[in-house]
Amino acid sequence: MPNILTSRFLLGPGPSNCYPEVTAALAHPVIGHLDPLFIERLDNTCEGLRTVWGTQNARTLPLSATGSGGMEAAFVNTVDDGDVAVIAVNGLFGERMCEVARRCGATVVRVDHDWGTPIDVERVLTAHPRPKVIAAVHAETSTGVLSDVASLGQNKGDALLIVDAVTSIGGLELLADDWGIDVGYAGTQKCLGVPPGLSPFTMSGRAFERRIENPRSWYLDVGLLGGYVGAASGSGRTYHHTPPVTMIAGLEA
Amino acid sequence: MPNILTSRFLLGPGPSNCYPEVTAALAHPVIGHLDPLFIERLDNTCEGLRTVWGTQNARTLPLSATGSGGMEAAFVNTVDDGDVAVIAVNGLFGERMCEVARRCGATVVRVDHDWGTPIDVERVLTAHPRPKVIAAVHAETSTGVLSDVASLGQNKGDALLIVDAVTSIGGLELLADDWGIDVGYAGTQKCLGVPPGLSPFTMSGRAFERRIENPRSWYLDVGLLGGYVGAASGSGRTYHHTPPVTMIAGLEA
Repeated sequence: MPNILTSRFLLGPGPSNCYPEVTAALAHPVIGHLDPLFIERLDNTCEGLRTVWGTQNARTLPLSATGSGGMEAAFVNTVDDGDVAVIAVNGLFGERMCEVARRCGATVVRVDHDWGTPIDVERVLTAHPRPKVIAAVHAETSTGVLSDVASLGQNKGDALLIVDAVTSIGGLELLADDWGIDVGYAGTQKCLGVPPGLSPFTMSGRAFERRIENPRSWYLDVGLLGGYVGAASGSGRTYHHTPPVTMIAGLEA
Repeated sequence: MPNILTSRFLLGPGPSNCYPEVTAALAHPVIGHLDPLFIERLDNTCEGLRTVWGTQNARTLPLSATGSGGMEAAFVNTVDDGDVAVIAVNGLFGERMCEVARRCGATVVRVDHDWGTPIDVERVLTAHPRPKVIAAVHAETSTGVLSDVASLGQNKGDALLIVDAVTSIGGLELLADDWGIDVGYAGTQKCLGVPPGLSPFTMSGRAFERRIENPRSWYLDVGLLGGYVGAASGSGRTYHHTPPVTMIAGLEA
C-alpha cells in the first residue's frame, strides 16, 4: 500500500487541498440515504449550492458524478438527435463539450478560438441563427482563461445557455440567475475545497420546461433526480438512487 | 447543521457501516489524480476488485458513479438501437435494468417473476432465440433473494451475460470468470464496507470486443476508461476525467 498519509500542496489543474472541516466530515459515520438526518443534510447542501451558483433554481443539486458527469448531464437533458448546439472551444473542456454533445445526437456548431484566449462573444452568438443551446466554459481549466459568459447570457435570445463552472465555482463571481445561465455544472475539487466526486448542478425552470423527456441517460435524468432532491415535487420525495452520502457530508461541511 | 457525529447501526437495504480503516483513509490528504502515488493506489484498487469479482479481466475498475451508474455503464456499452436484451425481473433492480436498457435503445424482452422468488433460469434462457445480452440480478437488494447466475452463464450461448452484484459483492461467492459473467457492476456501500459513490465494474475481453463503439455516454465509455486505468493500453495511460481520489483511497483501504 502506498503511503496514504502523504500530504501534497496542490496548485495544479487537478484537485485542490481540502478544507479541514471537509476532511473531518468524510470520516464521520455513514448514515442511511433515506435517514431524516441525511435528507436534512442534502437539503442544506442544495441550499449552499444555490449560494455559490448565485441562483434561486429549485433544481440545484449535487450530482453523483464528477464534473465530466455534470457535463454529460447538461447535454443529455437538453439536446437530442438533430438539435443544434453552438459550442465555444478555447481549451480542452470546450473540446470535450463537443464530443459529449455529439454523442447525445446534437448537430454541433463549433466556434474555435486559440487556446489561451477568452471566447469571442460576438462570434459565438452569430454562429447559428437558431441554436437550441449555446455552451461555453467560464474558466477553462486547461488554460486558466476566464470568459465573459454574462454577455452570452444577456444576448442568448431563445437559446438555452450551458456553462461549465468547474474551475470557477466558489472562487470567482458566479451569478447564474443574473447572467442568464440556464444549465450549469461544476466540480467540488477546486475552489470548494472538497474531494472530486460530486458535480454541483443547476437548471433553470425555463430549461427544465424545455428538457428532453426520457433522455438516453437514466442515471443523469433531471426529471427523475428532481423527485429525489425534493425541490421539484414538494413533499413527494421519491427514491432514485443511493447517493454518495459521505461525499455529500463533506460538501455540506 | 445536523449532528454529523450520529452513529447508526445499518442493517437495511441501503448502505452498511464502513470498516474503520476505510473511514480513516477518507480523512487522509487529497493527492493529485495523476500523482504516481494515486496511480499506484488505483492499480492496487483494480487488483483488489479482481479478487472480489473472481476475475482476471483487465477491464476491472471503480467507475466514478454509484451502482445505478454502473448499471447504465453495463447497458450503454453493450446495447444500441434494436439490440435484444433479455432481462430477468424479480425485484426493483430488474425493473430498473429494463428502463435503463430501453433508454439505450434496446428491444427489451422481460421475463417477469413474482418478487421474492429467485429467477427461473430455463425461462430466461428460452425467452428469445438470439439475444445480444441476457441480464439478471445476483442478489436482489429489494427482496434479498439470491439467484443462480452461474447456470445462466453456463448456458448463455452467444449472448453476453450482464450481472448486478451490488448487494452480493464481497459477501457471497462471486466467480465472474468461472460463471461466465461478461459484464458485472456492483456497489461499494454494502458488503465491501465503503461509502456509496463508486461502482466496481468488470468487463470480459469477449464483451469488450463486441462493445458499442462511441456509445451515447462519454462519461461511462469503457473504451475511453480503459485508457485511464491503464490495463487496456499498456503504458499508454491517458487522462479521461478527474476521478474521486478520496473515495478510491477508501476503497483501496
